[in-house]
Amino acid sequence: MPENVARKLIAAHLEAGEMTPGEEIALRIDQTLTQDATGTLVMQELEALGLDRARTEASVQYVDHNLLQTDEKNAEDHEYLRTACARFGLWFSKPGNGVSHPTHMQRFGIPGKTMVGSDSHTPAAGSLGMLAIGVGGLEVALAIAGRPLNIRMPEIWGIRLEGELPEWCSAKDVILEMLRRHDVKGGVNRIIEYHGPGLDGLTAMDRHVIANMGAELGATTTVFPSDAAVREFLAAEGREDDWSELVADPGSTYDIEETIDLGDIEPLIAKPSSPGNVVQVREVAGEEISQVVIGSSANPGLRDFAIAAAMVAGRQTAPEVSFDVNPTSREILTDLTQMGATAELVIGGARIHQAGCMGCIGMGQAPATGRSSLRTMPRNFPGRSGTKEDAVWLCSPETAAASALTGAITDPRDWAADVKMAYPKLDLPKQHSINTAMLVAPPPPDEAEKIQPVKGPNISSLPELDPLPDDVEAPVLLKVGDNISTDEISPAGARALPLRSNIPKLAEFSFTQVDETYPERARQADGGHVIIGGENYGQGSSREHAAIAPRHLGLRVVIAKSFARIHWQNLANFGVLALEFDNPADYDDIDRDDVLRLDGLREAIDSADTLTVRNSTKDQTFTVRHRLSRRQVSDVLAGGLIPRLAAEEHPDDHRAEETVLQDSGEIS
Amino acid sequence: MPENVARKLIAAHLEAGEMTPGEEIALRIDQTLTQDATGTLVMQELEALGLDRARTEASVQYVDHNLLQTDEKNAEDHEYLRTACARFGLWFSKPGNGVSHPTHMQRFGIPGKTMVGSDSHTPAAGSLGMLAIGVGGLEVALAIAGRPLNIRMPEIWGIRLEGELPEWCSAKDVILEMLRRHDVKGGVNRIIEYHGPGLDGLTAMDRHVIANMGAELGATTTVFPSDAAVREFLAAEGREDDWSELVADPGSTYDIEETIDLGDIEPLIAKPSSPGNVVQVREVAGEEISQVVIGSSANPGLRDFAIAAAMVAGRQTAPEVSFDVNPTSREILTDLTQMGATAELVIGGARIHQAGCMGCIGMGQAPATGRSSLRTMPRNFPGRSGTKEDAVWLCSPETAAASALTGAITDPRDWAADVKMAYPKLDLPKQHSINTAMLVAPPPPDEAEKIQPVKGPNISSLPELDPLPDDVEAPVLLKVGDNISTDEISPAGARALPLRSNIPKLAEFSFTQVDETYPERARQADGGHVIIGGENYGQGSSREHAAIAPRHLGLRVVIAKSFARIHWQNLANFGVLALEFDNPADYDDIDRDDVLRLDGLREAIDSADTLTVRNSTKDQTFTVRHRLSRRQVSDVLAGGLIPRLAAEEHPDDHRAEETVLQDSGEIS
Repeated sequence: MPENVARKLIAAHLEAGEMTPGEEIALRIDQTLTQDATGTLVMQELEALGLDRARTEASVQYVDHNLLQTDEKNAEDHEYLRTACARFGLWFSKPGNGVSHPTHMQRFGIPGKTMVGSDSHTPAAGSLGMLAIGVGGLEVALAIAGRPLNIRMPEIWGIRLEGELPEWCSAKDVILEMLRRHDVKGGVNRIIEYHGPGLDGLTAMDRHVIANMGAELGATTTVFPSDAAVREFLAAEGREDDWSELVADPGSTYDIEETIDLGDIEPLIAKPSSPGNVVQVREVAGEEISQVVIGSSANPGLRDFAIAAAMVAGRQTAPEVSFDVNPTSREILTDLTQMGATAELVIGGARIHQAGCMGCIGMGQAPATGRSSLRTMPRNFPGRSGTKEDAVWLCSPETAAASALTGAITDPRDWAADVKMAYPKLDLPKQHSINTAMLVAPPPPDEAEKIQPVKGPNISSLPELDPLPDDVEAPVLLKVGDNISTDEISPAGARALPLRSNIPKLAEFSFTQVDETYPERARQADGGHVIIGGENYGQGSSREHAAIAPRHLGLRVVIAKSFARIHWQNLANFGVLALEFDNPADYDDIDRDDVLRLDGLREAIDSADTLTVRNSTKDQTFTVRHRLSRRQVSDVLAGGLIPRLAAEEHPDDHRAEETVLQDSGEIS
Repeated sequence: MPENVARKLIAAHLEAGEMTPGEEIALRIDQTLTQDATGTLVMQELEALGLDRARTEASVQYVDHNLLQTDEKNAEDHEYLRTACARFGLWFSKPGNGVSHPTHMQRFGIPGKTMVGSDSHTPAAGSLGMLAIGVGGLEVALAIAGRPLNIRMPEIWGIRLEGELPEWCSAKDVILEMLRRHDVKGGVNRIIEYHGPGLDGLTAMDRHVIANMGAELGATTTVFPSDAAVREFLAAEGREDDWSELVADPGSTYDIEETIDLGDIEPLIAKPSSPGNVVQVREVAGEEISQVVIGSSANPGLRDFAIAAAMVAGRQTAPEVSFDVNPTSREILTDLTQMGATAELVIGGARIHQAGCMGCIGMGQAPATGRSSLRTMPRNFPGRSGTKEDAVWLCSPETAAASALTGAITDPRDWAADVKMAYPKLDLPKQHSINTAMLVAPPPPDEAEKIQPVKGPNISSLPELDPLPDDVEAPVLLKVGDNISTDEISPAGARALPLRSNIPKLAEFSFTQVDETYPERARQADGGHVIIGGENYGQGSSREHAAIAPRHLGLRVVIAKSFARIHWQNLANFGVLALEFDNPADYDDIDRDDVLRLDGLREAIDSADTLTVRNSTKDQTFTVRHRLSRRQVSDVLAGGLIPRLAAEEHPDDHRAEETVLQDSGEIS
């Protein structure tokens, strides 16, 4: 039967399950990617798992998030990551070497391979014909330890590209068109596969732009074929030997089919404050701006900077605009510099920053309150820039550069007509700069096992997690509404991100955006506590810190109307019992500080799906259900997945022989 | 009578007083320099003074400190500064355009001119034959308003330079030799003037290195002659017309005379944690390092980066070292890039950061706890890097680059012998890049007066200061020991610096390094309060925030054994009465929370130098004295200098006709 690229990738890595949408499958994982904001916890998990050496073909730890170093914590994290990588056999990409996704694509990406990454933009590697999925840190740690990834088989969504992009439009406008059509939930439980003759006009790095920002559609991942464009890219990186062809069979089909005629694309822009808020640039032209930022994994290629440089060359950006340029990597900065484009940008008014994520994740570059900031980045969620009431717009480098020059949102076609400029033909180098000196290879096993990871004063170990008690009698410390996100549970930003390697300290930020008194009250309720939630509890980012940090403060049970899937998985992974109201109306009868009793809990969840909760304060009872698999029940009873795996080492534990698999999944 | 350069500069600007060391003189000020961390308050002071338009020949506001933008406050400060500059007729140097001192030297410095700057490294302009002095912000505001600067006439300290620097030594080693000889207080109340045949081997930018870091000797300022080297520099900057000769007359002498034979200089390094802690590099060679930073106003020249690039070219910095490069300005980054050196640095492992002060003032680049960081910067005070227990060393670019390559502190001569490298002959451009597009000129007066400075939500106005009450009955909220620095009174760093434009919020950090409860207790004591200090109260940085912020919290009187001069001046400027114990032993009889009474205070300080304080709690009295001039008494009675000047507008105020002068002085 003729197969598409996505199904070929899955079939080649299938360890268990049936390739029927919705069915659980287990996939062998070839590579892993971690970044520093999630990677420090992954290293602590590897320690807790007692791993000796990574079992993947390549596992690479990047440092691209926490680069500001406003105090000692960042540098100590870097040192911990460097030495932990040496200990466990991972590659270490030094701070400033570059953003994980494009750097991984350049140095490690191989067509036909699978990868998991503790970063939601991991799907960018789909540009090379890889199957790359963003997951929580513990799932990456398990992949490093050689365990397969369990997901539910997604639908495959074929997007046929026809025609050719018009001048002054580029790959960013293609993914913005997808977001215009389908908004931020359009890709949930789907793998997007691009195919068709329109691919011929898209380089591998153009495809990276589309695959990367496919995360904003909520897709499990995005895949492209491995064709001549991929071969050309790998050859330019000195790795043509890593190329192999991987294309859809003639006659293969997709679960969902759709077509985009590239010739119809116009310059597009996502308005504040959602990537799905897409309109034509001309609809909002003239809006005054105070900042333009070029960079991030959503527009990482040399051409994305070079096109801006060509437009800025010999001109000056507007005096009231800060024009910030974040090079993707040292390799790309080298090429950009050697071709003369760095000088053009600097002369034109650019602030050239170190290579890294920078403002894309709110590490610096925060704009003034309410002032429009145009960015080539993938996300403009409210406040993500570091400014509480921000106004961030997402667009192509062409639109960004034209707007930086005029001081207002500008369609690059209109700017070009004004200044009488033809669309630049970029003369990019055929061979890219290659510099592996900043990628520290792991030492051989006999050296590695002697290394002790260096933990600065700010770096903790993973907290010990005790088993679920048989009887829980605990107060409700928080009652929250619908759609509480993991950003509200455990915030990011320049204050909290440096604490990602220190759960006890990070825990002090838990829920503080909702209720500043929570951490203190949680510590006082030292017998544990309960949180009551509404619909879609724990939506958003996959950060497992949102499960571990409240757990560390004593959270044992969350009862909600419904849960977001990844956070629900993370709660089970870290031994918090997630329960759903049988009757959502019972939510209304519970108040903060009510004391709830769950008696005979271990037996109850082991033997049935529903159980009864007693509200001692109100003298009422209500029914709840759990949706845990047998494996997850074991995890929660043990206090979490790590204690459960540790228990397997003890032959007297009757669960030791159980197959170790886990429910996992893509990031939305 | 033959005169030296320093006395010629003073004589040419003398408005009042005698040029006898120790006597008060008033100097006409031609130019001012402000940076953003102090400049926002200067703008608020200009507002409070009701200034219409700057009366200097050139006043330039730079943005080089608060560049990280971890939230909206930095960007809002930048916007405030940009619009306030337009309103008051100042030049505005955009964020990322460059570090104030070298940028000012390149674009505005003129031999023979005077300048005050609200930054302690302002003396760097002495490299061009200027008399440039660092002062508090209010003194800069008054200079912008056309008022003269009052200082006590310093001694002139002549340093005769002979011979020529050996290979692998450079200007940084000369100023380190001065610090080795004289430590950090050796220059107090002195102007250092370099002269002699050794000058021939030092470019204007080399001299900048020496003049800049003269601040670490505690000198009032440093001057060099304006000679052929200065002419060459100005010609390279396209400003040869601004050159005029200014050299010491034959036979002129100095108050103190000393000689340095440059031929005897060796590579030197300041150990943690004082710039005066200088030893030969070879004495500490082999010490492992984790970070090397090249940049700052202490090594700002193209050659300082180019020499490092030449050493790194074709090599790789050590894997365990973060090699950070902070370009001085966009112009210098342009030249560095166009000559190929930026690419050499990047390929060699450098993290290239935006142009600005960056880690020099603890804005990012903080090293790991206790790990050695080598920097070409001017200061290594404990904790200044942003890391509480840091280990920062100061050295030349040659020593920094050699050490980055080896991973340990390395004498560049020994490294060169190892790798068989001759001392590089740098091929620097004869014409420097000139780019004034990032320097926003003030609009003409008729446009300027229509402009309303834009104040974001984080920007306050200068607090209103009420007159000194006649009777003070107030509690002692703090009793501190000797040598309390302004860093302890009002801390810098990435958390507090963004609040420099918001006194009410900044005030919450006051004294928190000494006693976290002070701000809250000060607010509760709403009738004002007293602080008791030991010797040398208020030493260190000149920041006037250390006077204004506690004043805002209700501080009315400080009684100490002795005061540091600049903070003493700042207290008077902002209406806080500084009193010294007549008998230092009385310090011991006072405890925190004692209530002190000062009755008939206004009459008392107006009519006599000593007064009596009653400790109501202890039922004791003791005598104190003030050392205020008549002018300063008026300031304190009025609540500060600004209210006093405002009162002059009212003809019924009998002090209106008094000459407006002030005691001021250099920064130590």
